[in-house]
Amino acid sequence: MRGKIILEEAWNLSRLAADEAKLYASIHGAALLGKALADIDGRIAAMDEAGVEMQVLSLTAPGCQGVSDPVEAHNMAVESNNYIAEKVKANPSRFAAFAAVSMHDPKQAAKELSRAVIELGCVGVMINDFQSSGPDGNTTLFYDNPAYDAFWAAVEELDVPVYLHPRLPSKLVFDELYRDRKWLQASAWGFANQLSIHILGIATSGVFDRFPGVQLVFGHMGEHIPFDLWRLDHKLDRDRFPEMRMAKNKTIRDYFGSNMHITTSGHFSTRSLQGAIAELSSSRIMFSIDYPYEDGLMEGSTWFDALPLSQPDLLAIGRENALRLLKLDRAPHNMKPGLTLKELEIGGLGG
Amino acid sequence: MRGKIILEEAWNLSRLAADEAKLYASIHGAALLGKALADIDGRIAAMDEAGVEMQVLSLTAPGCQGVSDPVEAHNMAVESNNYIAEKVKANPSRFAAFAAVSMHDPKQAAKELSRAVIELGCVGVMINDFQSSGPDGNTTLFYDNPAYDAFWAAVEELDVPVYLHPRLPSKLVFDELYRDRKWLQASAWGFANQLSIHILGIATSGVFDRFPGVQLVFGHMGEHIPFDLWRLDHKLDRDRFPEMRMAKNKTIRDYFGSNMHITTSGHFSTRSLQGAIAELSSSRIMFSIDYPYEDGLMEGSTWFDALPLSQPDLLAIGRENALRLLKLDRAPHNMKPGLTLKELEIGGLGG
Amino acid sequence: MRGKIILEEAWNLSRLAADEAKLYASIHGAALLGKALADIDGRIAAMDEAGVEMQVLSLTAPGCQGVSDPVEAHNMAVESNNYIAEKVKANPSRFAAFAAVSMHDPKQAAKELSRAVIELGCVGVMINDFQSSGPDGNTTLFYDNPAYDAFWAAVEELDVPVYLHPRLPSKLVFDELYRDRKWLQASAWGFANQLSIHILGIATSGVFDRFPGVQLVFGHMGEHIPFDLWRLDHKLDRDRFPEMRMAKNKTIRDYFGSNMHITTSGHFSTRSLQGAIAELSSSRIMFSIDYPYEDGLMEGSTWFDALPLSQPDLLAIGRENALRLLKLDRAPHNMKPGLTLKELEIGGLGG
Amino acid sequence: MRGKIILEEAWNLSRLAADEAKLYASIHGAALLGKALADIDGRIAAMDEAGVEMQVLSLTAPGCQGVSDPVEAHNMAVESNNYIAEKVKANPSRFAAFAAVSMHDPKQAAKELSRAVIELGCVGVMINDFQSSGPDGNTTLFYDNPAYDAFWAAVEELDVPVYLHPRLPSKLVFDELYRDRKWLQASAWGFANQLSIHILGIATSGVFDRFPGVQLVFGHMGEHIPFDLWRLDHKLDRDRFPEMRMAKNKTIRDYFGSNMHITTSGHFSTRSLQGAIAELSSSRIMFSIDYPYEDGLMEGSTWFDALPLSQPDLLAIGRENALRLLKLDRAPHNMKPGLTLKELEIGGLGG
Repeated sequence: MRGKIILEEAWNLSRLAADEAKLYASIHGAALLGKALADIDGRIAAMDEAGVEMQVLSLTAPGCQGVSDPVEAHNMAVESNNYIAEKVKANPSRFAAFAAVSMHDPKQAAKELSRAVIELGCVGVMINDFQSSGPDGNTTLFYDNPAYDAFWAAVEELDVPVYLHPRLPSKLVFDELYRDRKWLQASAWGFANQLSIHILGIATSGVFDRFPGVQLVFGHMGEHIPFDLWRLDHKLDRDRFPEMRMAKNKTIRDYFGSNMHITTSGHFSTRSLQGAIAELSSSRIMFSIDYPYEDGLMEGSTWFDALPLSQPDLLAIGRENALRLLKLDRAPHNMKPGLTLKELEIGGLGG
Repeated sequence: MRGKIILEEAWNLSRLAADEAKLYASIHGAALLGKALADIDGRIAAMDEAGVEMQVLSLTAPGCQGVSDPVEAHNMAVESNNYIAEKVKANPSRFAAFAAVSMHDPKQAAKELSRAVIELGCVGVMINDFQSSGPDGNTTLFYDNPAYDAFWAAVEELDVPVYLHPRLPSKLVFDELYRDRKWLQASAWGFANQLSIHILGIATSGVFDRFPGVQLVFGHMGEHIPFDLWRLDHKLDRDRFPEMRMAKNKTIRDYFGSNMHITTSGHFSTRSLQGAIAELSSSRIMFSIDYPYEDGLMEGSTWFDALPLSQPDLLAIGRENALRLLKLDRAPHNMKPGLTLKELEIGGLGG
Repeated sequence: MRGKIILEEAWNLSRLAADEAKLYASIHGAALLGKALADIDGRIAAMDEAGVEMQVLSLTAPGCQGVSDPVEAHNMAVESNNYIAEKVKANPSRFAAFAAVSMHDPKQAAKELSRAVIELGCVGVMINDFQSSGPDGNTTLFYDNPAYDAFWAAVEELDVPVYLHPRLPSKLVFDELYRDRKWLQASAWGFANQLSIHILGIATSGVFDRFPGVQLVFGHMGEHIPFDLWRLDHKLDRDRFPEMRMAKNKTIRDYFGSNMHITTSGHFSTRSLQGAIAELSSSRIMFSIDYPYEDGLMEGSTWFDALPLSQPDLLAIGRENALRLLKLDRAPHNMKPGLTLKELEIGGLGG
Repeated sequence: MRGKIILEEAWNLSRLAADEAKLYASIHGAALLGKALADIDGRIAAMDEAGVEMQVLSLTAPGCQGVSDPVEAHNMAVESNNYIAEKVKANPSRFAAFAAVSMHDPKQAAKELSRAVIELGCVGVMINDFQSSGPDGNTTLFYDNPAYDAFWAAVEELDVPVYLHPRLPSKLVFDELYRDRKWLQASAWGFANQLSIHILGIATSGVFDRFPGVQLVFGHMGEHIPFDLWRLDHKLDRDRFPEMRMAKNKTIRDYFGSNMHITTSGHFSTRSLQGAIAELSSSRIMFSIDYPYEDGLMEGSTWFDALPLSQPDLLAIGRENALRLLKLDRAPHNMKPGLTLKELEIGGLGG
């Protein structure tokens, strides 16, 4: 398929490459990762080869969320938003960007997001799970706290999606759960384990009820949530949990019809995708790669292009859903909606 | 369908009913729960109505795992094993039992399991996630620690399955992750979130490689694991994690073909079950209810009997897999293997 | 779910009730069928009960296609179109109609269809497989013959769908294939066996290439076609069949993305529907009952409402696809597009 | 996957190559087909490459069923059975054979099948739809006629499966249904359309009730039947069809649990196979290619090996089901049952 859009694709400021290398040294080992994160212009050849028309860029995790000093975190957001906006401006038909924001102060986050969207043209925001905070960096801020309503209000008004991305667990959780099995703390398991609590915290705290326009995106085939929707809703018994603020007549499943979307980043499983379609419908799923934590664009693209899905589902998941949610048909991106299956080279016998 | 077997079904010693009521007071609210747990003989009428031939009983969570004093924990195991063995003896064609064990001391656990299986006729053992330990009860013991090889060796020799059941998170994890969204800590999300780490710790520490006969069962449609098998195996990169002891040429998926089984307890979702069958095949899945935390046997049984599955899959999941794994065809249970679809009243147009 | 639309629902002229009774005497046996076919006004209570907002009516099979005399066939079309238009006019928020046409003469068919759509407000046309013709009634006319291009041109210009409905096989085919197993000739097997050849004849003769606006609908979960799309396209090898007029760069699967739709009429199978969604996507499937050949609206509606499908798929299949294809949002039907899941009572835990 | 078994694989007597070429001239065009059919020894290199351990050979369609002279048909059966038995004897670890029989006379068919199984070692019989008969060859014999009970009794006693293979429609059906769309008469559509009537005729005539040991196999993902099981059983209403001899308390679905099996020959569709597993379970499905009508073994094998199925399902469909049904563990074939997934090279991340 030509014309694909991918939206969990990381970049990094060159000056941070060393930090990233240090952070992931023990668990990634890939010497080239820092380099790949910093190189943006060089991505186009691989996009052409893989049939990817548009790559939505985001500052790599943990980004501002890993900076426990509020001033430093905000400065990182401003610097990286300015930088990536220039990169997008140079090639708006191939790149778009999610803003980065410090989440220490909900109002400051709202303001920087507003600047990034209105002045810089960002198409949404990428937030990496909880905000590290406190003098020792071990305080963790979650956005289901009522104080963050100021942020969610701005998100709704700006009408851009929030992509929630995982990060490593806090020191305390690591010590308790992962120290003796630390290979489980990151992308293999802990990432989704942690982030799913945050996502469900946001949903059950009533954010979507108070701000029905908020659109949340999360990757890795839904961070463990789609397969367990039934049990989740079955067990969130309102009589048992009168203090849960989520609307009494809503289920988490309902929010998947109105406020939540998933991507396939780093999870190229045919069966899981088929399962996610069955749970959520193809209208709430978007293709993504997770570059460069996935090694290049070809494995994911080859998998996607050969999926045993119907042509309308390939079109929706590979392109149209993201185009519509991120409004990529607008200037300066000007992507064309409504291209035919033939124009996108979807076809053949199917799988 | 007649002749069903269910295997995550809780009971409790009458003297503990008050504790249970206290523990779950805030989140269950069901005044009748303690009574239902203590009543065993009274279950048969409901089993008959629901087409359940055999109910495998287990001491309710957290059971011995919640008792941080080693002596007290062991005494609870002995008392409850003796008690439930008498109940089974009185009606072996309708009841079987999983043993309870204190997991403070792997060798003591092995010995009590041996007694429960050989002398009392238990068909396996139910363990409720980590063992609480330490003077303040806040130390948590996990069974992927090499010290527990003594326990796993006994399990293999006795040739009975270990059912791993969830429990509430430790105080520390609760404070960090669930305090502000405590409706997520238990069956809705936290149970599986926690237990999945323990299960995957056991698998990745090489228990199944050192003790290939060990059979692990876990409920709730696989505690979040089946849907994410691909990403899990994809990310457990051996070059990155040389210290991970699991066999280098194995995947977690492989162990689902040789050492792991799931049940449907408390997760009556057609889509999730279809997804689990696609991932694991019907040969690794067993029907279960989770009584009395599910309200009666009828909701789960009605769901199961009307599932849009093939007749051989209904037979395997509803009866044959459990019958074979738990050896329920042996005395004193004497269940009949190989009953026909007609004898079990499986049939009709299908779904 | 409230607000459902159903579109393979038969009616009959009272004067033909006797004929119908005679035709189906041997194979239906239902004395009440003729009465049910003739009663239109009495259907509304059952629609209310079953959550059906709109019923699209069509003259029962074989209708005009069973009349081998051209004049008589045309007269039947005119009479029945006039009659049903009056019925619809009396209650346009609950009924719409497919026209009936004699297919002896493509131009006459085009003209009557035009009158039925423009003057009478029909939303499409129902045709019952081949047209019986010839002095003994044993000549069979198929619409993949180039002579019918005049008809297809009118269909495209009028921009209304053609619903192809099965009928009993010709005498000759009956004698050869069904005489000794005549229970297979009708709805159990022969209906779809026959009609599928006609549908595939139309597609492979290039009708959709010459008239790309033509929209074909067929019921009974696709008359055997969706499950065998792969083999069909795999075997329609263009080198072997140079005389096949269908576009060389097209597959039958492609036409399911642009020109063909199926309904669930008389085929309430969860698995088959899930399979059809996997092949075609939910965007090409519409709920229908096949009243009164299915006994009432409740079996099909109850099945549909409890399906383990995502909410967006239920909405599309139960209502939106038909509303859009048949333009039921226009006067006099004035159905509301875009109703929410809550307004339509789609929700709950899902299946 | 290594160790696969394939069982709809054609061969031909060299002296018949010219006839075959003539028969398929207009629709196949492959000059090399006759040569490929006649070459048996040369197949092993391709089997090795494709991971196929065993190929079950059958005389190509229509074989004896296309010979309307009873003596000539029987002679062809004897000659071809003798010939292929020698070929198998030379390499029994790689080849097995289905017998060919003339079906003019049920008793003669039974006798020749008995000789082929007992004296020649055939593992079953391949029959190509109806038997052409009569002076002009246009009479068609179907085996649901009570006269064939003598044949079915022998099949049951010999305890070998009957593989029903399609052939071109009779002249009369061709003239009526396919003359103007003759690309639909063969493997693309007509083959399954015709054969499905014969299969369902056998089932509904009660053959499986009178001879419960009969095992019927048919290819091409079930000749249109699995996807439409629900409607088929729903419409075979016993009140309407008192003359249908099939047991009143049985459904066609039931026979898929006891007497019918399908293969994947010539139908390498992931979605259709997933649908068939959902309907029938993996226990009733066997991998096959349809060589040489499929061009080599690699397309089908590559597809199969990469399927997004669970490992137990791959093992069952690729090897174990056929091994058991055809008793290929017996001499002289001596295939090993119970090989592990590792030995068969099933594994990796799965799809």
